[in-house]
Amino acid sequence: MYIRNEDTICAPATVPGTGAISVIRVSGPEALGITDKVIKCKKGSISESKGYTIKFGVILDDAGTVLDEVLVSIFRAPHSYTGENSVEISCHASSYIVSAVMDLLYAAGARAAEPGEFTQRAFLNGKMDLAQAEAVADVIASQNAAAHRIAFKQMKGGFSSELKGMRSELLELVSLMELELDFSEEEVEFADRSRLDSLLGQLIAHVGRLIDSFKLGNAIKNGVPVAIAGATNTGKSTLLNSLLGEDRAIVSDVHGTTRDTVEETLNIDGVLFRFIDTAGLRETEETVEKIGIERTFKKISEASIILGMVDLTRDFESTCETVHEIIEKVDFSCQKLVILLNKTDICDFNNNVTTINFIVSSLECKGIKSSITENTTELANQTSIIAISAKTGSGINILRSVLAASQRDLLADSDTTLVTNQRHVQALSDARTSLLRVQEGLAFGLPTDLAAQDIREAIYHLGSIVGEISTDEVLGNIFRNFCIGK
Amino acid sequence: MYIRNEDTICAPATVPGTGAISVIRVSGPEALGITDKVIKCKKGSISESKGYTIKFGVILDDAGTVLDEVLVSIFRAPHSYTGENSVEISCHASSYIVSAVMDLLYAAGARAAEPGEFTQRAFLNGKMDLAQAEAVADVIASQNAAAHRIAFKQMKGGFSSELKGMRSELLELVSLMELELDFSEEEVEFADRSRLDSLLGQLIAHVGRLIDSFKLGNAIKNGVPVAIAGATNTGKSTLLNSLLGEDRAIVSDVHGTTRDTVEETLNIDGVLFRFIDTAGLRETEETVEKIGIERTFKKISEASIILGMVDLTRDFESTCETVHEIIEKVDFSCQKLVILLNKTDICDFNNNVTTINFIVSSLECKGIKSSITENTTELANQTSIIAISAKTGSGINILRSVLAASQRDLLADSDTTLVTNQRHVQALSDARTSLLRVQEGLAFGLPTDLAAQDIREAIYHLGSIVGEISTDEVLGNIFRNFCIGK
Repeated sequence: MYIRNEDTICAPATVPGTGAISVIRVSGPEALGITDKVIKCKKGSISESKGYTIKFGVILDDAGTVLDEVLVSIFRAPHSYTGENSVEISCHASSYIVSAVMDLLYAAGARAAEPGEFTQRAFLNGKMDLAQAEAVADVIASQNAAAHRIAFKQMKGGFSSELKGMRSELLELVSLMELELDFSEEEVEFADRSRLDSLLGQLIAHVGRLIDSFKLGNAIKNGVPVAIAGATNTGKSTLLNSLLGEDRAIVSDVHGTTRDTVEETLNIDGVLFRFIDTAGLRETEETVEKIGIERTFKKISEASIILGMVDLTRDFESTCETVHEIIEKVDFSCQKLVILLNKTDICDFNNNVTTINFIVSSLECKGIKSSITENTTELANQTSIIAISAKTGSGINILRSVLAASQRDLLADSDTTLVTNQRHVQALSDARTSLLRVQEGLAFGLPTDLAAQDIREAIYHLGSIVGEISTDEVLGNIFRNFCIGK
Repeated sequence: MYIRNEDTICAPATVPGTGAISVIRVSGPEALGITDKVIKCKKGSISESKGYTIKFGVILDDAGTVLDEVLVSIFRAPHSYTGENSVEISCHASSYIVSAVMDLLYAAGARAAEPGEFTQRAFLNGKMDLAQAEAVADVIASQNAAAHRIAFKQMKGGFSSELKGMRSELLELVSLMELELDFSEEEVEFADRSRLDSLLGQLIAHVGRLIDSFKLGNAIKNGVPVAIAGATNTGKSTLLNSLLGEDRAIVSDVHGTTRDTVEETLNIDGVLFRFIDTAGLRETEETVEKIGIERTFKKISEASIILGMVDLTRDFESTCETVHEIIEKVDFSCQKLVILLNKTDICDFNNNVTTINFIVSSLECKGIKSSITENTTELANQTSIIAISAKTGSGINILRSVLAASQRDLLADSDTTLVTNQRHVQALSDARTSLLRVQEGLAFGLPTDLAAQDIREAIYHLGSIVGEISTDEVLGNIFRNFCIGK
């Protein structure tokens, strides 16, 4: 289904709705001729026009009535997005006009493009590799500077050239090893074993670094996971609304696989945070919904930051219990805890010295320093305790600063490649497994042909990221998630 | 506020959201230079490029990182939409990129365009008159072929040239009359009185025809008003959903001044219908909400079609009462009635011969012929009685055909100008009032100077439609309703 390059395809490339301009894309061998059938230019024709020029024309409907006046941008192969002859028709942004123009294009011989088919053609025509094509969708979806920077770098081939370097080193090694095999009777060693060992070590470390970068890359792309822990009715929704109110950031459901828990994303100072509601845990413990509890524990264990909400209006005993439970759940080696003393609007936190002391000493037992964070100048790498009122918004600015400061490395304009795609992580892990097998095999003196086969496997896995090796099924899965018109 | 043509303005011209392409428009004296500051081309610059060409370039952010690769369409004054130097920047459709590019354009010296400001500049630069400019918004909003045809014709100046003809005739007359005034002591009559009379009569008829066309024009633009009358719970929502199910047409609230009653629009065979829920009238009569009742009566009196819903499951007496009430409300001289016998799924309408006979004879008393309409071949211009089940959809196709057939004239590809704009109707009415005063004055031998002044007034009102005479306030009101970027 995905190799039909002889067709000419068309699709609206702009978001539907009432605006000033809509753009319709046409691409394929007959793109110029088909457009000429639909659009009449005052002078000359689209087929005769040079690439990178614009023609003014009118579109007539079947009855000969003028449907719209349009501008047509002309691109000639290979100097177009898809690498094929292409046009972009810029018409009035009326859904009626767009659908009428599409009907005329169908009648003239074009067919509707599948989602992502323009980018797929760019891939098939060698305008970009698979990792770059995947990054196009990420560029479009990126909501902040950091996510945009990673996606754009990948789209421009930064990640691909890194992979290319690794693959060519492996290819050189494997060809030397295979040369050995051809001369096996002579027992010659073309491949320098110590160089092979050192290169393998470097590559395994490099692949490992890329795999590890996924945590950061994914945090930038999909948001830093923040779990909100605490008893029910401690004010999670109020807290989110309060954070929102400050900068009118976008709160939205995260689409994807994590729909089983409620998640909302929020952009704070250019960093995307993904808030996971795990409040209400205590209640659930007393029910039989064990699966739900396990899922919630998993979410908390995956979070980078845990906001422990304490309701100042509750009694000391119940507060201690909540604090204890929260602290027990945190892995301080890789997670940051922020304790929020909520409801200062109706309860002065200065009257809760015992509570605060209890929190500080509980954390001290775990070897964690903590203190009340009252202004943004003292953002140490310790556990912050912040007195807030989710309702009035008091203290929320401090929380925002603490959250943003904790992720300052995300904003660093680093040149390190960050992997953001699950498919790529999987391929990298598979490559690493093969390389570790080679390393082990060489150490135990296994035959060269087995090592060569494992290196070939590693090359295959790295190649699958950029689409050197790809099946129709893989391509279908990748481009299906694009929007129509891209 | 509206005459700031020396500024260079910019705005996104496509609908925001995740798509393939977003287009940002820049227009004004510095459009090319400002764009050059933001976009680096590989070869040459935008300022040096010819009109109607496309340049490929990269956008760098403040830190020098590549933000996006874009295509820039270049238009040079006066050959652009606004008549000024303009560019259209086509970038990846990411809200992050679009807002970053807008920020860079602001920093380079452009300011954000007001809603409709591009079209307003086209008007101020003489690219189109006011009636044409208003039609741009209508072209974008048009949801069906007929509405699109009217709006497009007006945008291309059909209506304007008709008005121009009338105005030039009046101008000729008034200048002859004013010449008389200059020579008043000599008692010369330059203006031929009988020709003046006949011309006045023609113009008054012409203006009257345009005013009358508003009913049809408005029906095409905003939908044919259909009132649904009957007792509550006779199945109005079910009926609308059933109509919808047939072709997945768009049901939406009508925006504007009529929000006090619930209205939904529906496209049937290319004609837009606007359904007004007036069900529940009987209940309301027994309450004190007199204002509500009056409003509902007004809505019914303004409808072109009335759907009288009869619930077959109710007892004969109550049905007779409903039928009687519905028939009393219809003005058969200008309104079409369709009786719907609903709930045939649970009640065989053949068992309701008495009900049907009652309806037929009630209508006969009013001089209206009616009959059960069972298939679409017998769509006479009489009152249809249709047995339906809103729930199962039975009979709905017949109703659709009856509705569409009743409005066949809307689909006729007529060349007659139809007025669709309330502002234009008002101006035409004002012009007619002035002209009638001239006619009366001449008949009673009033002085020439008074008649000349009334003709000047008529010219003024006609001119206000195309913007020959316009105040900042009028312009502000018109362009405020445009979308940004148009």
